[in-house]
Amino acid sequence: MMRMDNDYCSNVKVQAAEFRKSVRKEDFKTHTAGIVPGAVQANICILPKDWADEFLRFCRMNSKACPVLAVSNVGDPGLPELGADIDIRTDLPKYRIFKDGVCVDEVFNVLDHWRSDLVAFAIGCSFSFEEALLTSGIPLRHIEQGSDIAMFRSNIRTVPTERFRGNVVVNLRPLKPADAIRAIQITSRFPGVHGAPLHIGDPAQIGIHDLGAPDFGDVVTVEEGELPVFWACGVTPQSIVEASKPPFCITHKASHMLVTNVLNSELAVI
Amino acid sequence: MMRMDNDYCSNVKVQAAEFRKSVRKEDFKTHTAGIVPGAVQANICILPKDWADEFLRFCRMNSKACPVLAVSNVGDPGLPELGADIDIRTDLPKYRIFKDGVCVDEVFNVLDHWRSDLVAFAIGCSFSFEEALLTSGIPLRHIEQGSDIAMFRSNIRTVPTERFRGNVVVNLRPLKPADAIRAIQITSRFPGVHGAPLHIGDPAQIGIHDLGAPDFGDVVTVEEGELPVFWACGVTPQSIVEASKPPFCITHKASHMLVTNVLNSELAVI
Repeated sequence: MMRMDNDYCSNVKVQAAEFRKSVRKEDFKTHTAGIVPGAVQANICILPKDWADEFLRFCRMNSKACPVLAVSNVGDPGLPELGADIDIRTDLPKYRIFKDGVCVDEVFNVLDHWRSDLVAFAIGCSFSFEEALLTSGIPLRHIEQGSDIAMFRSNIRTVPTERFRGNVVVNLRPLKPADAIRAIQITSRFPGVHGAPLHIGDPAQIGIHDLGAPDFGDVVTVEEGELPVFWACGVTPQSIVEASKPPFCITHKASHMLVTNVLNSELAVI
Repeated sequence: MMRMDNDYCSNVKVQAAEFRKSVRKEDFKTHTAGIVPGAVQANICILPKDWADEFLRFCRMNSKACPVLAVSNVGDPGLPELGADIDIRTDLPKYRIFKDGVCVDEVFNVLDHWRSDLVAFAIGCSFSFEEALLTSGIPLRHIEQGSDIAMFRSNIRTVPTERFRGNVVVNLRPLKPADAIRAIQITSRFPGVHGAPLHIGDPAQIGIHDLGAPDFGDVVTVEEGELPVFWACGVTPQSIVEASKPPFCITHKASHMLVTNVLNSELAVI
């Protein structure tokens, strides 16, 4: 655990940049839950220009599920707002390639898939606020388990645009009631990375009928006396891409995030 | 409904003072749920001086259950911080007289019970934040029903002092999950009137085994798809008085509150 001192912020940024280097070299290929505490992690969705502007509008209309942290220039693989050295073609542990809404490949870099008309979107990820939960003494089961988080396709509909539609994907953190209340307070401070939960309690109310069968990630047990608490998940764009079928799209693989130089504390609204 | 304008604050204070006048004349003798929206309501506990200082320390150690809004001078029935004209002997719709921890009478004023060694405590009441919930579109069942709120003795223990001990009394607001999340955000802004809930979900976890049998107030139905949400209640001091048995004590009757000139908006921390 890093010591908290005057160099905390620069240390986090250094760690984030070093982590991206190891990803770029393909030394790190797995999920990023718990990686570089303090650094904002981002979901990625990359679309051709003729779909990108409408996607940004779709995100703006669905900002709880799809909070946009940064957008690239057309054809530019950099996202300098999130880190000067970022190359979006190489800096994620794992990518998914979609054609007409179907995932056709999973790869460790997209250098061969890059095109001059692509626009990259970085979308907030709830891993970003987990440091704030942990430092408040709120235990997180998936981190205890050393596993990925459990993610589910919900029946919560997004507001559609002409071509984009689909349902919100949520992730699950089982919490004792008092921790759930505190977690709602803490995560409310971070609207840029999904903020407060979307749902608490009965999973069936949002169309989830088996907590033991997540659509993405690992099974996370809800123990006696705990409430399932559901946050909007940055895997939502993948569900949207599947429903909306753009001819070409690149996303991260669920939980295999871009680790940025932005600090969670920089995103906190109060 | 009062119009929101530049005179909002002074209008609320005028309404609160007028309401107290009608109470003082014993024209109003029932519970104050929904009365003078915008005005802070207060629970009252009046103790002899030789118990009062320890009670203040007890409240400080249990500030979530017993947030102190104001304390009177010894023998002084005024609480000028809460309204220049307040006379605590006459301004509550109903009082309870306790001897050795047992309620021996319920009365409409305590002029005949007043003593020169008494100290009055005004303690925050969760009715105060209900305006903020209602203006956010969160429906409150007890107000819909036109009834009093349901209050329960929980098994949550207070931190004891030498003579004061007992369990926290909680009140119930059944809410849909999304409203419960929003209500946690909103009430967190009001720590002086109990703030965020203490518990959400399974009542048995806090020692409540029958929601149909409240210890104070009226039955409030929890409907299909709702979560029971429990806030600390200012009736807690009455439970403390019963357990701690001071020789003499005056309290308000549950939900028959002091309506003050302080505005809820003045208590909001953010």
